[in-house]
Amino acid sequence: MNATEKRNRFRAVLAGPRCMSPATVFDALSARVAEAAGYEFGLLSGSVSAAIELAAPDMALQTLTEFAGQVRRVVRAGNLSVFVDADQGYGNALNVMRTVEELEHAGLAGLAIEDLVMPARFGAGGKDELVSIDEMKGKLRAALRARQDPSLVIAARTASLKSESIENTVARARAYASTGVDAVFVTGVKNLAHLDAVRAAISLPIIVGSAPTLTRAELEAHGARFCLLGHHVLPAIVKAMREVFVHLHEGGAPAALKPNIAPPEEMRQLLAGANYEAWVREYL
Amino acid sequence: MNATEKRNRFRAVLAGPRCMSPATVFDALSARVAEAAGYEFGLLSGSVSAAIELAAPDMALQTLTEFAGQVRRVVRAGNLSVFVDADQGYGNALNVMRTVEELEHAGLAGLAIEDLVMPARFGAGGKDELVSIDEMKGKLRAALRARQDPSLVIAARTASLKSESIENTVARARAYASTGVDAVFVTGVKNLAHLDAVRAAISLPIIVGSAPTLTRAELEAHGARFCLLGHHVLPAIVKAMREVFVHLHEGGAPAALKPNIAPPEEMRQLLAGANYEAWVREYL
Amino acid sequence: MNATEKRNRFRAVLAGPRCMSPATVFDALSARVAEAAGYEFGLLSGSVSAAIELAAPDMALQTLTEFAGQVRRVVRAGNLSVFVDADQGYGNALNVMRTVEELEHAGLAGLAIEDLVMPARFGAGGKDELVSIDEMKGKLRAALRARQDPSLVIAARTASLKSESIENTVARARAYASTGVDAVFVTGVKNLAHLDAVRAAISLPIIVGSAPTLTRAELEAHGARFCLLGHHVLPAIVKAMREVFVHLHEGGAPAALKPNIAPPEEMRQLLAGANYEAWVREYL
Amino acid sequence: MNATEKRNRFRAVLAGPRCMSPATVFDALSARVAEAAGYEFGLLSGSVSAAIELAAPDMALQTLTEFAGQVRRVVRAGNLSVFVDADQGYGNALNVMRTVEELEHAGLAGLAIEDLVMPARFGAGGKDELVSIDEMKGKLRAALRARQDPSLVIAARTASLKSESIENTVARARAYASTGVDAVFVTGVKNLAHLDAVRAAISLPIIVGSAPTLTRAELEAHGARFCLLGHHVLPAIVKAMREVFVHLHEGGAPAALKPNIAPPEEMRQLLAGANYEAWVREYL
Repeated sequence: MNATEKRNRFRAVLAGPRCMSPATVFDALSARVAEAAGYEFGLLSGSVSAAIELAAPDMALQTLTEFAGQVRRVVRAGNLSVFVDADQGYGNALNVMRTVEELEHAGLAGLAIEDLVMPARFGAGGKDELVSIDEMKGKLRAALRARQDPSLVIAARTASLKSESIENTVARARAYASTGVDAVFVTGVKNLAHLDAVRAAISLPIIVGSAPTLTRAELEAHGARFCLLGHHVLPAIVKAMREVFVHLHEGGAPAALKPNIAPPEEMRQLLAGANYEAWVREYL
Repeated sequence: MNATEKRNRFRAVLAGPRCMSPATVFDALSARVAEAAGYEFGLLSGSVSAAIELAAPDMALQTLTEFAGQVRRVVRAGNLSVFVDADQGYGNALNVMRTVEELEHAGLAGLAIEDLVMPARFGAGGKDELVSIDEMKGKLRAALRARQDPSLVIAARTASLKSESIENTVARARAYASTGVDAVFVTGVKNLAHLDAVRAAISLPIIVGSAPTLTRAELEAHGARFCLLGHHVLPAIVKAMREVFVHLHEGGAPAALKPNIAPPEEMRQLLAGANYEAWVREYL
Repeated sequence: MNATEKRNRFRAVLAGPRCMSPATVFDALSARVAEAAGYEFGLLSGSVSAAIELAAPDMALQTLTEFAGQVRRVVRAGNLSVFVDADQGYGNALNVMRTVEELEHAGLAGLAIEDLVMPARFGAGGKDELVSIDEMKGKLRAALRARQDPSLVIAARTASLKSESIENTVARARAYASTGVDAVFVTGVKNLAHLDAVRAAISLPIIVGSAPTLTRAELEAHGARFCLLGHHVLPAIVKAMREVFVHLHEGGAPAALKPNIAPPEEMRQLLAGANYEAWVREYL
Repeated sequence: MNATEKRNRFRAVLAGPRCMSPATVFDALSARVAEAAGYEFGLLSGSVSAAIELAAPDMALQTLTEFAGQVRRVVRAGNLSVFVDADQGYGNALNVMRTVEELEHAGLAGLAIEDLVMPARFGAGGKDELVSIDEMKGKLRAALRARQDPSLVIAARTASLKSESIENTVARARAYASTGVDAVFVTGVKNLAHLDAVRAAISLPIIVGSAPTLTRAELEAHGARFCLLGHHVLPAIVKAMREVFVHLHEGGAPAALKPNIAPPEEMRQLLAGANYEAWVREYL
């Protein structure tokens, strides 16, 4: 499946009647496990990528190049349509143009640019701040201009609900939609009335993140077409790693770890062993 | 702890009376979990790095640049002394020189060059083959010549036991030791007599890998100073990821995953949250 | 112009009646200068890339990842259709598959895989050696299998003329053509009879490199469709750099360098200054 | 010469009585040519790196990772002590910490953090703006905190003279010096009175850039210890490339380029051919 096909699969979901959720993925192996579990969509968030690559919190510390490298490793592993959170676009509107160029090249299906001030402003005291509507519109128009393949999905992400009134959020959604983006991505949705208000204001598909009090069924019924359910896989592998490391560090027998681990045949399938064996026979 | 200090810590183990085992690590997060579990030594093997970065089997498909990037991400995350399996040195003796330059720059504590023909030769029918003793000696001397920091550990790794007689293995160990390397790394040890024979032939520290039928205590008593116990952490995270992905893909509630995941405070500690908060207060 | 369009432009030349020559390019700036001079085709050879990136001779020291990064920087700079010499494919047939995947992703128009043993074999005494016809056929079939975009040109390059009889060269050309590659690339052509013999044996387009005693017109008349004229630009920039550096190091006045340098307006055009100014006005 | 030795050579110049100028370098080959011309110091500026890598103007479009990669390629090529302009540190004070970590790792001798708002602020109308003194002090203290090798030179660069009064510039120099940086870097010096005013206010070494109306002798007599004389080498190679490309594109004979190019023996020396030949004999 080439990049355009992956993008069109994502567009079909956004245009359809259902709300799909992606698997949180972060390296080639996690992408393969997600596909084996039946997923067609993957997500790489800034928080997860920083944890894996830098072991650092989500504070805009990763560079665009590092992030694009990670995206490429995930995309290359298989056929997931990958959507990413591209933070604020790694700078101003001109940097957004490079962000779109580099991430599109990495092969993803869609990306979101957010209206947060990132990295944090000197003197902001650790509080999140939003850029103005005008600045964000400039960034979104720049993103659209930089896109080469028209099938790539570009979404406007707003953190407005976390610090502004629903009226402001609606105004932002409407203004961002006017630039020609493909979707509006709303984070911090706490109740369905919020979602209804945004939905009434725009005719674009809505993506929802960080809404732990709402179910996918509820979000779907109120217009969401893509919803992020959290990144549980990250603390899950931490727990798994910790258990293996503590066991072995304390002198436990390696063989006793058998119940903790995937069987060899699962590993072989995930690493496409049969393909490589066939290629050795054919070409080597 | 700077690179030289990490290297000297590894040298102290090789010169000491104990046999230590490293944690298998492969990204910044796994390195942090290993340190939190008490490890001072980490290992990145070619098989694990290929699985994480390419989702491919261990067939010399990763480039030196990709591998060095992964090593750097692991080393940068903390204070582990990291030892790596640098395959055959990514080509001939001149490529070995670049391998040492790039991996030393990535900050590791030690590396091993192996005597396998890699990538597989056309027509070899998928069987492992060894390079000649003379070729391997050229590679080892080139590796030593390319080293900048004399504290970096360079080990000669032999796969001889898997296909040759113990006499040949001993001859290889003796020849490799004569080049001035810091250690000899033997894989495929099936019994203690093998280890004793190698030990009797050379005065260098011995590193052992892939000896699942022997315990660390036995290996230590027979002269091993560093032993690899296998890469169980890799199938362990696969199992953890698969369980999360299958649960969510089948519509399971995210909240039900709580028993599978590390608690938020553990995550915050692993990601050095307190450091960043302090830096925000001091500098921002 | 997207990657497929660039590739089809290259295919049109190979299928046409003329022999075109590419500009030797190696970074974003050189690619822009070549386009400004009227070129539609660029070439990145292994020797030039190693000189720029490693300041090393052409001895297979650069990694595939490094080379692909350089290709990407050249391709990204503009609309050249870029053809590259991908050495032996960076390993065996499986490595060739990765080579095609990575270089196709970098956006080039075509690539050649050569039948030389690379890196040099231990004990070869510095002499070039060729792989067997069977091994090379395996590599070419693997390359074709790994191609995603069918418009990408894959050429079989042979160094046979430098060490074998013309009969052997013809046999190689015929065997390589039978795999389905798009062109045969012959280096070391010393006379037109050689070219005629290859041309008579195959129906594929012929690419010629390193034929300093023959003119482009002669090569064209005898069937070549793409010919490399040498990498003079590399020693040309060395001379230019040396003159500037020596002048300034000896205390010469910077202003006296004016005759040596491109005027500011040329620099501004090469760096697309007008585009960026327009984007600042529109988006910032 | 290892990284610490290169750094101490730079410190010796800053502490001495002379004003040295670096060669502007940007890839491995230019670094070798500079060393062959007698230089001990190299400089990689943001404007030159963006031109080479992106063919883009100096607008903060390059990522830290891209820049660090370029620095590494320059540093690896030989024994220059390399000083770089690290723009604003690629973000806020926390990003400055990563900048120091990554650039120190790349092996440079010194770096400067500048007090410009970068990338340009939305609505700034293309005008340069300065960050507050407090913000800049936070960045400098963060930079010092992130340094691992105390021999690495960290300089505070101010663009104040281009838009502020000399009194403000002096106040900034004094405030920046109070953080413990190793040098103050002043750009836009138009007359010696400016330099005298800064020199009277601080006891640190002064670095001067972009002062085309003043000579190195004048700058030295008024206290500068390192002065940048401009990046003439960049338009010089553009002119050289353009002449080669135009000549060949118009059908000129390659052989006619002989007067434009460095002789083969110079190329062989620059690419360290003798070293590689010796290594082939010894190890291969």
